[in-house]
Amino acid sequence: MKRIQVVQNILDANESIAAENQRLLDEHRVFAINIMSAPGAGKTSLVLQTMANLKHRLRIGIVEGDVASTLDAERVKGEAAAVVQITTRNMSESCSLIANMVTYALKSMPLEALDLLLIENVGNLICPSEFALGEHKRVVVSSLPEGDDKPIKYPMIFADADVVIINKIDLLPYVDFDIPAFRRTVDELNPEVGFFEVSCKTGQGIEKWCSWLSKEVESNAHKVSN
Amino acid sequence: MKRIQVVQNILDANESIAAENQRLLDEHRVFAINIMSAPGAGKTSLVLQTMANLKHRLRIGIVEGDVASTLDAERVKGEAAAVVQITTRNMSESCSLIANMVTYALKSMPLEALDLLLIENVGNLICPSEFALGEHKRVVVSSLPEGDDKPIKYPMIFADADVVIINKIDLLPYVDFDIPAFRRTVDELNPEVGFFEVSCKTGQGIEKWCSWLSKEVESNAHKVSN
Repeated sequence: MKRIQVVQNILDANESIAAENQRLLDEHRVFAINIMSAPGAGKTSLVLQTMANLKHRLRIGIVEGDVASTLDAERVKGEAAAVVQITTRNMSESCSLIANMVTYALKSMPLEALDLLLIENVGNLICPSEFALGEHKRVVVSSLPEGDDKPIKYPMIFADADVVIINKIDLLPYVDFDIPAFRRTVDELNPEVGFFEVSCKTGQGIEKWCSWLSKEVESNAHKVSN
Repeated sequence: MKRIQVVQNILDANESIAAENQRLLDEHRVFAINIMSAPGAGKTSLVLQTMANLKHRLRIGIVEGDVASTLDAERVKGEAAAVVQITTRNMSESCSLIANMVTYALKSMPLEALDLLLIENVGNLICPSEFALGEHKRVVVSSLPEGDDKPIKYPMIFADADVVIINKIDLLPYVDFDIPAFRRTVDELNPEVGFFEVSCKTGQGIEKWCSWLSKEVESNAHKVSN
């Protein structure tokens, strides 16, 4: 079917552009993460908590992907060294960030003045898993009220993640969510994945996540310098 | 750009197939709703509550759309007169049900023995808004833990909805969600929309929703008979 060939061509082109983005990031020793989740799982809250924890140690840039509105960019501006908003509705793909949108964002960022780039993807558990952006690590946020069956229902995004952050753990007494069962399901899809359990509302678990992240930034800078 | 033309062709073809699906449903006096939401907002729980409330009065069929897994179909089978599972991962479009998937489902359902068809779409607030399926009404489920900003961030799906169901209202004491502000935002996008506030966990509000739905089934059967 013609459509499938068109999609395959787009995915192949995307991979090349993503590789070029990563080359540019490495040239400037900027470590980038791609943060993905369902709508409302807490990506923006995670960005804000991460900024609050790390901004005195690291120079951080943010790319905010949204279908419509600049709400998330408004929330994070003032916190970061640089913020670029990408509104996907006006682009040919609308359900995910794709690599050439990030190329555009990188062009308007002072990469030489950054250590870490947080890319907040569009809220979607399906499309973003197909499009690499040039990130060094892929982070999936899954929140308790969504239910513990999400890795069974949206396996691709969990299978490709480097880290899964379980957010809204403050709601554990009020929702049905079996954390060990969830972790077992993700482990089966992806035995190498790392887990963090956090509440972006109370701050629980953020220190541990940020400690891991800052070590990754450091080790990547060391690696690309050699 | 070539890609945009391809997408436009797909959308146009989808509209024709959706119209044909609706014609077939009307011929058999089956009223269909397309239930859309973010992952984990409670579509399957709404289907189960709706079945429990209406199955003694109406003959109900279910189409379960999922990217992967047959989990939702397993949950609802035994409740419905007919259940068809559509797993989109193996199709050319994967982030939404599209009309020709529903055509396929309708072919394997005993339409003459149904009054109501509940179509549970894939968990996604973006793609499903572009693809009509042949449904008579479009229902968007939005749950409190997702936050009250979803209509600002994903306006298209709310602008096209006939009904918005606010689910998980049992969690109101534990999350930040301004119900009047949410309703105002949706009203601005879509002044004709109807609202229901429910908890699929406690059953609160389900009676009112099902009462509206059964009246719609009746009035549609009356309309297509004349």
